[in-house]
Amino acid sequence: MTAAAMTPDQALAAAERVMARCDQLAAISETPDALTRVYLSPQHKRANALTGDWMREAGMTVHQDSVGNIRGRYEGAAPEAPALLLGSHLDTVRDAGRYDGMLGVLTAIETVRHLHRQNVRLPLAVEVVGFADEEGTRFGITLLGSRAIAGTWPEGWLDQEDGQGIRLADALREFGLDPQRVADAARPVGDIAAYLELHIEQGPCLEQADRALGVVTAINGARRLNCTFTGQAGHAGTVPMTQRRDALAGAAEWMTEIERTTREAGPDLVATVGALQCKPGAVNVIPGQARLTLDIRGPQEQPLEALLDDLLARAHAIAERRGLTFEADEFYRIAATACDAGLQHHLAEAVSAVQGDAPHLPSGAGHDAIALADHWPVAMLFVRCKGGISHHPAESITPDDVALAIQAHARAVAGLATTHG
Amino acid sequence: MTAAAMTPDQALAAAERVMARCDQLAAISETPDALTRVYLSPQHKRANALTGDWMREAGMTVHQDSVGNIRGRYEGAAPEAPALLLGSHLDTVRDAGRYDGMLGVLTAIETVRHLHRQNVRLPLAVEVVGFADEEGTRFGITLLGSRAIAGTWPEGWLDQEDGQGIRLADALREFGLDPQRVADAARPVGDIAAYLELHIEQGPCLEQADRALGVVTAINGARRLNCTFTGQAGHAGTVPMTQRRDALAGAAEWMTEIERTTREAGPDLVATVGALQCKPGAVNVIPGQARLTLDIRGPQEQPLEALLDDLLARAHAIAERRGLTFEADEFYRIAATACDAGLQHHLAEAVSAVQGDAPHLPSGAGHDAIALADHWPVAMLFVRCKGGISHHPAESITPDDVALAIQAHARAVAGLATTHG
Repeated sequence: MTAAAMTPDQALAAAERVMARCDQLAAISETPDALTRVYLSPQHKRANALTGDWMREAGMTVHQDSVGNIRGRYEGAAPEAPALLLGSHLDTVRDAGRYDGMLGVLTAIETVRHLHRQNVRLPLAVEVVGFADEEGTRFGITLLGSRAIAGTWPEGWLDQEDGQGIRLADALREFGLDPQRVADAARPVGDIAAYLELHIEQGPCLEQADRALGVVTAINGARRLNCTFTGQAGHAGTVPMTQRRDALAGAAEWMTEIERTTREAGPDLVATVGALQCKPGAVNVIPGQARLTLDIRGPQEQPLEALLDDLLARAHAIAERRGLTFEADEFYRIAATACDAGLQHHLAEAVSAVQGDAPHLPSGAGHDAIALADHWPVAMLFVRCKGGISHHPAESITPDDVALAIQAHARAVAGLATTHG
Repeated sequence: MTAAAMTPDQALAAAERVMARCDQLAAISETPDALTRVYLSPQHKRANALTGDWMREAGMTVHQDSVGNIRGRYEGAAPEAPALLLGSHLDTVRDAGRYDGMLGVLTAIETVRHLHRQNVRLPLAVEVVGFADEEGTRFGITLLGSRAIAGTWPEGWLDQEDGQGIRLADALREFGLDPQRVADAARPVGDIAAYLELHIEQGPCLEQADRALGVVTAINGARRLNCTFTGQAGHAGTVPMTQRRDALAGAAEWMTEIERTTREAGPDLVATVGALQCKPGAVNVIPGQARLTLDIRGPQEQPLEALLDDLLARAHAIAERRGLTFEADEFYRIAATACDAGLQHHLAEAVSAVQGDAPHLPSGAGHDAIALADHWPVAMLFVRCKGGISHHPAESITPDDVALAIQAHARAVAGLATTHG
């Protein structure tokens, strides 16, 4: 039989359960008054155990894989069918909110629970995964859970150390896992049909559009650079304005151009100078050096690269005109990840069915879907969060929005599984 | 009899002596490889003793006053005549150059030496002072020597502590002075006719003008402020450019306006943002706060105040347009000190006689003349320094420039003493 749509009452009951479970998970923290739950910690183990219980209660068989991801499987109509993979991550940043990651795992469990209660088997199996590490809080490397499933852990990750000097390999052993068996977590490509992730937006766009749900078009690519303007320090009282080689003044001019140029380049591109230091940094000395970071992001590679080229050319022009030097060192680059058009179509249909229309938006933040997109079609459903705030205890969502999200999610899963099965 | 002009050969010999004595004083340092000589230190005592010897050799009677200034007096034609006061300071910043301050004391000694060798007595006495503390390196308060002579030490200075927690009163005792007798250093107004100080420019203007000497029009007034833009921190990837309240972007816009507005306000005004910090200061977070310093200076109070008002109005306008708040806290203010027109005239005549013309320029840095201007007419003669560099071991002047300076100085002193006597 096919799945019956979830009624609004069922969805609201499921949403209340999800909110309560977010609270339960939030209580599993290394510090009592600020939520922090990092990879391979005792709190990770407790969160996996609790999530595994909820998976079993929803009708799934449960397995913790070789890197600590918790996975539940609900078989399809035929045994060994490829799976539609649902989920998100269970780890957090320090002093985190309680929905970033967890909401996607718990709503996925509700979707399976609804199928199970109705005794419905889809053409595809449905798997729910709680990724062990997306944020990278402990080891400074991100997407560990999803990259293990994609089989793309780089050489050397086992030697990464945390802030206490503990190697990742030793942390795996301490957790009860075998660092020799990391590769066992990788899934054959044929095992998974597609990946669908529900997540809070972490931005203000849905709130501004007065909508609970949105369909993600792409996960933004990003570039991060350390930039330096170098001029000549000098006495703030004795060097006339026309004879200065003020590094900070050059940086200021560039910052205004970064802001204006990025606005003009299109609504989906963002550029941020997040950190700036100048030397020598005294009230009465003209700065001889200004170091600043540049973070730019966009949903498509070509416009992103063009913007970066434009901004760097402007920096060099400013430096030349002012008698400064400019250097830029790119230390982080991730390509934009497009969401699968067919999956977006299913999500948009489901979102429109529950809220009347389906806004589309890019994701400014990174997600596990980036790692899974190496092998499988991916898509994401965003839920609005108050003020666009995330990575902060003030992270906030409403049960009504969650109910709509679960309805749309369940509807999209049924549609996808039927089409792709 | 009146003074015979100094010949070029006499001036060059005097300049060589001055350069050698600058080297001798530079060897009196608390650290062997970086010149540092602070108030009431053993090095202060040794520098005073050596300078006193040179004063005596030049024909002066020598006296160390109650705050540690070293003073030499060369009587005029009549006993007890008011004195033309010449000099500068003998203390240094940390890791200092060897000419800032010392050059003015040693050239003044040469001027008296020339009078003495010619057996000339002027209508005015000539006094040379080596001020004990101008830089404020040890106690964080400046112009201690000249303010003692002006009788304007504020209440509480004796309780100021140095970096080791030593009170100024105790440091005076340790040096062999009596903190109860600070007021003895103050000079009756009628004792001094005028104050003339020779100093390195500490800026690049004379070098740019290809001139050794310049006449100072005024010592710039200054204002220093701590300023803060406050907005809203946010995720660098998820908040669209149009929805940001980026405190650093606001500060950058203001910095470009500070630079442009100050240039337009006139060639003698300068404004500097020397220090800037933003919070939280992470590559991937939109800055919620930007703190920056503003230092503005100018030779006349009214244009300086108007510039400050304009800059603050612009900051408030930027903040309002961007949904930020702006606060400014003025923590330092010193009024502009005009140099006496009659004294400038004498200096200009003397400078023109030795180098053909007399550029006029304001002093961007502070000097002892500020303190003495409370009671007496003051004027300053600037000598070019390489690259405008000061407060640094690279501070550099040439013997040829010093020879011109001594010639002009001696000529101006003779002219002044005759006119004012």
